Amino acid sequence: MTSNAAGAGTISYEQAGVNYDLIDPLKVAAQRAAAATAGHLAGHGFTEVKASRGESAYVVDVGPFYLASIVECLGSKALVADEMGKLTGRSYYAGIAQDTIAMAVNDLITVGATPLVVQAYWAAGGSDWFGDAQRAQALVEGWKKACDTCGVAWGGGETPALAGIVEGGRIDLAASCTGIIQPKERLSVGDRLGAGDAIVLLASSGIHANGLSLARKLVERLPQGYMTPLADGSLYGEALLAPTVLYSPVTEALERAGVRPHYCANVTGHGWRKLLRHPAQLTYRIDALPRVPEVLRFIQQHAQQDDREAYSTLNMGAGFALFVDAADGQKCVDVARGLGIEAVVAGRVEAGPKQLLIEPLGIRFGDDDLQLR
Amino acid sequence: MTSNAAGAGTISYEQAGVNYDLIDPLKVAAQRAAAATAGHLAGHGFTEVKASRGESAYVVDVGPFYLASIVECLGSKALVADEMGKLTGRSYYAGIAQDTIAMAVNDLITVGATPLVVQAYWAAGGSDWFGDAQRAQALVEGWKKACDTCGVAWGGGETPALAGIVEGGRIDLAASCTGIIQPKERLSVGDRLGAGDAIVLLASSGIHANGLSLARKLVERLPQGYMTPLADGSLYGEALLAPTVLYSPVTEALERAGVRPHYCANVTGHGWRKLLRHPAQLTYRIDALPRVPEVLRFIQQHAQQDDREAYSTLNMGAGFALFVDAADGQKCVDVARGLGIEAVVAGRVEAGPKQLLIEPLGIRFGDDDLQLR
Repeated sequence: MTSNAAGAGTISYEQAGVNYDLIDPLKVAAQRAAAATAGHLAGHGFTEVKASRGESAYVVDVGPFYLASIVECLGSKALVADEMGKLTGRSYYAGIAQDTIAMAVNDLITVGATPLVVQAYWAAGGSDWFGDAQRAQALVEGWKKACDTCGVAWGGGETPALAGIVEGGRIDLAASCTGIIQPKERLSVGDRLGAGDAIVLLASSGIHANGLSLARKLVERLPQGYMTPLADGSLYGEALLAPTVLYSPVTEALERAGVRPHYCANVTGHGWRKLLRHPAQLTYRIDALPRVPEVLRFIQQHAQQDDREAYSTLNMGAGFALFVDAADGQKCVDVARGLGIEAVVAGRVEAGPKQLLIEPLGIRFGDDDLQLR
Repeated sequence: MTSNAAGAGTISYEQAGVNYDLIDPLKVAAQRAAAATAGHLAGHGFTEVKASRGESAYVVDVGPFYLASIVECLGSKALVADEMGKLTGRSYYAGIAQDTIAMAVNDLITVGATPLVVQAYWAAGGSDWFGDAQRAQALVEGWKKACDTCGVAWGGGETPALAGIVEGGRIDLAASCTGIIQPKERLSVGDRLGAGDAIVLLASSGIHANGLSLARKLVERLPQGYMTPLADGSLYGEALLAPTVLYSPVTEALERAGVRPHYCANVTGHGWRKLLRHPAQLTYRIDALPRVPEVLRFIQQHAQQDDREAYSTLNMGAGFALFVDAADGQKCVDVARGLGIEAVVAGRVEAGPKQLLIEPLGIRFGDDDLQLR
């Protein structure tokens, strides 16, 4: 099915402007070259955790504990903040800062790491970006607040002015994060994942920072654009800008509560297909769904996506997935709720072919639906 | 003195388009907010190395060793590669990859760290950037080769397509790097820096990745632009693209040779003023100069900079400074030369006011000339 921007019809993620066919060959070449560098660690007396290749963070065994590191990009969410800033006169960069840190921290914790240090990468289109004191201050304050929430030290960073590379008036935001996995038994790269595990889904606050190309494309169809009211009265643009939930307080609290996830999946690009991230041949059966945030329901409706398309692109209310011992499922929910994050024991892992069955919606995603490695 | 782009007259760095007055208030606010997050490490049983605040890499004491981390941006050098690519049909992105890693690795090693893991941040203006297979392959191969040279593992990274943020056809390149300082006595944040130390300068290969705004501005004055031949017959554009020297093989070889630098300075933005990086009240007296690469001599001449301006902006042949025990000076030179990197015992540290005296040129930089903290 095809559509033009302003007309009717489904908007798929590819139609929203991201062409993975062009990026993927580079990714594969880069992944192969990267894997070939692992041997260098032996020269320093260390080894990589090979299972972390293809996971959300890279893990090295440095002896007394594991070291995990990552760099993550915010993506295009700042463009929505810029548009909404023009429309309302407010700055949304405190939330954008949280989103950027969430991209890095929520990935880092999937391997069982405690995030320790965050570095800021704020590349502006020119020095003048930093001249808007209100916006710059919001970015600084939001960044600090997110570090406070995650208990990480903000180590420093880069604030280059990149005229000619970053567009004028724009900023390219990213964060790197380093953490450790201690004790080493916290490592969760999937070797403990197995049939019988409970699948716990932690609630998202909205679109988080994935699917924004689609969300922005949709604006062209809305006569009131970002100022379109949703069913709950909030504005589309503001709802899109709800900051991404930071999940490291949950994973740290779980460790204190004696719960060690067998595996974790940060639900970002590719939506619920991310639940199929681990290469093991296992079936993931979902029988309870989290509440879908109003803004995602709105996007699904106006982009005329069926459930399969929506759940394959957007988080649909599930920001982070924990795969835990069946006996720990409810405890995870209790710990998350204690931190103000809604959660649900959504299903279980079973022996069987690699597939995700979202039973309430009659959706099946198979191995072919997610190729990350 | 003022000048217009195509006319005569000095081109200062500020005239080349970087306005630090706009960036600096944000930097100060960010540094203060970042410093206030250090206490979070105590919650995990760790502490920051306070002296690393304001240094080139952030250091955390994790018990058996120190952890160092950083994120660094390439800057605008890729724009030169793009122009030269159009003019010659060649891809210069293997060198650009090395430059990007050098930005991170050469900063990380200043604190005494062994770089272990590099993460790639390649943010393109659109998916189509990755469609140029020759260029993409050069980037991958150059990145891997630089990792091989530095003995680091390439952990992974991000390859976002950021249409609307990064300009079409351009790429924003950065690298994060994590390393450890082991044994802890390798830490070189300056507490061992003192009068009597020798100053060893390691040769640069050219402009490296700082001063490119100026170098690009200069092209407007050259009738043959990037294709202008230098005195040694090389082309201006190609000479600019000489990849930045990777210095971690030197610092690692020094450790094996039993030499522990008291302090290090990566000579990047602010040129030789970076030798004044440490806050201590000490005088740095230089009596021997490294050879100035032809391309830097050319820039100085055509931008009509006097020596003071040139040495305050460009590396002028010194890519990295080691401050070592006086008895170790010549050994540093020998170790560097053994790795194919020219070096010179350029001077010494003395008791006295904070200043850098470049005696062969009659230049003095005082404390007021470099404000990084």
